[in-house]
Amino acid sequence: MSRKVAIVGGSLSKFGVRKANFRELIQEAGKGLFDDVSNLDKRDVDSFFCGSAMPERFAFQSYVAPLAAAQLGIKPFKVTMRTELACATGQAAIRAAYACISAGLSEIALVLGVEKMNVPNMAEGQASMASVFDREWNGVHGVTAPSFFALCAQRHMLTYGTTQEQMALVSVKNHKNSSSNPYAHFQKEFSVEDVMNSFVISPPLKLLDCSGITDGAAALLMTSAERAREFTDTPSYILGTAQNGSGMLVEELEGLSNWYPLRRAARDSLKSARISLNEIDLAELHDCFTISEIIEYEELGFCEKGMGGRFIEEEQSYIGGKIPVNTGGGLLGCGHPLGATGVRQAIEILWQFQSKVHPSRQVDAEIGLAHNLSGDANVHSIMIYGRDLR
Amino acid sequence: MSRKVAIVGGSLSKFGVRKANFRELIQEAGKGLFDDVSNLDKRDVDSFFCGSAMPERFAFQSYVAPLAAAQLGIKPFKVTMRTELACATGQAAIRAAYACISAGLSEIALVLGVEKMNVPNMAEGQASMASVFDREWNGVHGVTAPSFFALCAQRHMLTYGTTQEQMALVSVKNHKNSSSNPYAHFQKEFSVEDVMNSFVISPPLKLLDCSGITDGAAALLMTSAERAREFTDTPSYILGTAQNGSGMLVEELEGLSNWYPLRRAARDSLKSARISLNEIDLAELHDCFTISEIIEYEELGFCEKGMGGRFIEEEQSYIGGKIPVNTGGGLLGCGHPLGATGVRQAIEILWQFQSKVHPSRQVDAEIGLAHNLSGDANVHSIMIYGRDLR
Repeated sequence: MSRKVAIVGGSLSKFGVRKANFRELIQEAGKGLFDDVSNLDKRDVDSFFCGSAMPERFAFQSYVAPLAAAQLGIKPFKVTMRTELACATGQAAIRAAYACISAGLSEIALVLGVEKMNVPNMAEGQASMASVFDREWNGVHGVTAPSFFALCAQRHMLTYGTTQEQMALVSVKNHKNSSSNPYAHFQKEFSVEDVMNSFVISPPLKLLDCSGITDGAAALLMTSAERAREFTDTPSYILGTAQNGSGMLVEELEGLSNWYPLRRAARDSLKSARISLNEIDLAELHDCFTISEIIEYEELGFCEKGMGGRFIEEEQSYIGGKIPVNTGGGLLGCGHPLGATGVRQAIEILWQFQSKVHPSRQVDAEIGLAHNLSGDANVHSIMIYGRDLR
Repeated sequence: MSRKVAIVGGSLSKFGVRKANFRELIQEAGKGLFDDVSNLDKRDVDSFFCGSAMPERFAFQSYVAPLAAAQLGIKPFKVTMRTELACATGQAAIRAAYACISAGLSEIALVLGVEKMNVPNMAEGQASMASVFDREWNGVHGVTAPSFFALCAQRHMLTYGTTQEQMALVSVKNHKNSSSNPYAHFQKEFSVEDVMNSFVISPPLKLLDCSGITDGAAALLMTSAERAREFTDTPSYILGTAQNGSGMLVEELEGLSNWYPLRRAARDSLKSARISLNEIDLAELHDCFTISEIIEYEELGFCEKGMGGRFIEEEQSYIGGKIPVNTGGGLLGCGHPLGATGVRQAIEILWQFQSKVHPSRQVDAEIGLAHNLSGDANVHSIMIYGRDLR
């Protein structure tokens, strides 16, 4: 890599079913960011990367990058673009900013992720969400997010003996973590029984196995590693990144309970960051559904293949365990505004480094990993962040 | 910049009102690209940048980057993302690829621009196109592309005395150029009288002052300058790039007939490429409407401010003139499939360097400039390409 890059500040809107509209969410996250990075002169923000998955459908508004820049009061004069990669849209914006700063095309970049998902016509909203799958070839056969991840869960149960109670524990842990996160959509703890008794969405997935339909925005500021300390004493440095994919159609995937592209992305991300797996102290994983987090433990190498259920049962991903996962509550606890999620994950890791989170979920971490899957888990994206440069 | 980058091959689908659907357009452009870069092993394409402005509305399909990759038969294993910047969406994809290759995140990247704009329900299609303006604040007052650029034209006529006949000449020139371009939507020449007598869309703009509603796709291959000659003897090197913007709302613009952000982007692009204005031999300008090209002559410095009408009258932007503009026909001649346009412009310059265009429009060029505006001309994006590295 040409130039090292750092995240120097971050901010979240409150996540939830918000009365705030698309632009008010942006303003809320932006206000927080400029408060956080108080010595920033807005006129120095030369570039802007806006992650938003489908404002064309949720808000009937395209060209949202300049629209969002206007809400933030910035006039980027080097790079402005919107990125989209379904559920990994926010991380795609971070990666684009990373590339531009690293290449010298940008000095100071603002990254915003936003999604306003609760709309008056939720039938239309839900149809829109299904458009991250191949509508013409898979959608007609009923592939949506819950039905697809239910298939993955069924296959994982059959092959590895994973139980619904083990999946429920992921929900219990993440809601426990989000209960002290003031930005989270859900700030209430649930028991395994609560999860098991919640109504069935797509068997074996029940309501509390699923992340919410959430409005939210997240904003962060990035610059070169050399300039990071102009803005904060505790930057979060980008140590590495990787991505791997495998087709688009469900029938083209290499497996339902084996996510090989994630295995490859995990390998490449460690290589890119020049670290070994056991150096990771903290992980933000894409728990769109409880089964996702279980499969991710395995493919990332936190445990052996097929032992993800056991891993959560042994509380190894709890705060205080082998590797705390989703300390802020993840997608299950915070909700999943598509464009905002990847940016929120980076901010959770930044705030962990900066000791800005509630003491009950504070972790002593030097290196954090953030992972997003997108679509039918066909593409996996990873960022690795460090308190120090390597 | 860290690493120099080159375009080493390109391909277009036929532009027009096509029976081909979204994915067939992608396949058509992809087939052409793999024929063009015949010694490429598809498995070496590590990254994919998909420029598509609003497939969520035109095709009710999001997450189009992996979908398009599947149509192309590639499995990018480093970076996959979609970019969006309304009418500059294609160039945004090129810029993202440029940053990633320059930063060392990618070695071989495929850039695809695509838009399927002719849909069964054209009322819905037209409403969608208006969503590149701020719908809540400007759309309600009737701001669409024709009405906005008509305002610019009225102001330019009032301030600088530009005439409708001068605007018509832009259409005459560009349709003349596209008449020998087999990929163009419109392959027919028109006279000034034809333009003047075509029906009024938004005064003073008439049908032939406006670019078409067009389906099309364009694909190109990029790699580092060091590796460029593995794929072609005549690469097109990226010498520089710049972008500048100014708010979102029409009432926030710095001017209607003075496009200051373009003036700043032009200055920055020359600086970035380390060339002077008179070294540019060829320009692809964003002629979404005839008035646009006239204002662009001025803001780019091809002529004095206010003299754009005279510039076309003197045939200075004709092939054989001071600086040939839109040798392939531009948006007026080729049509304007939003995501494809910026990629098509890069390919026109590549093919000019490679002497692959029809002899009637072949230009002897060392350096070419490509420009896109987007939305209400609030953001301007420029790439500068050269036959040789500087």
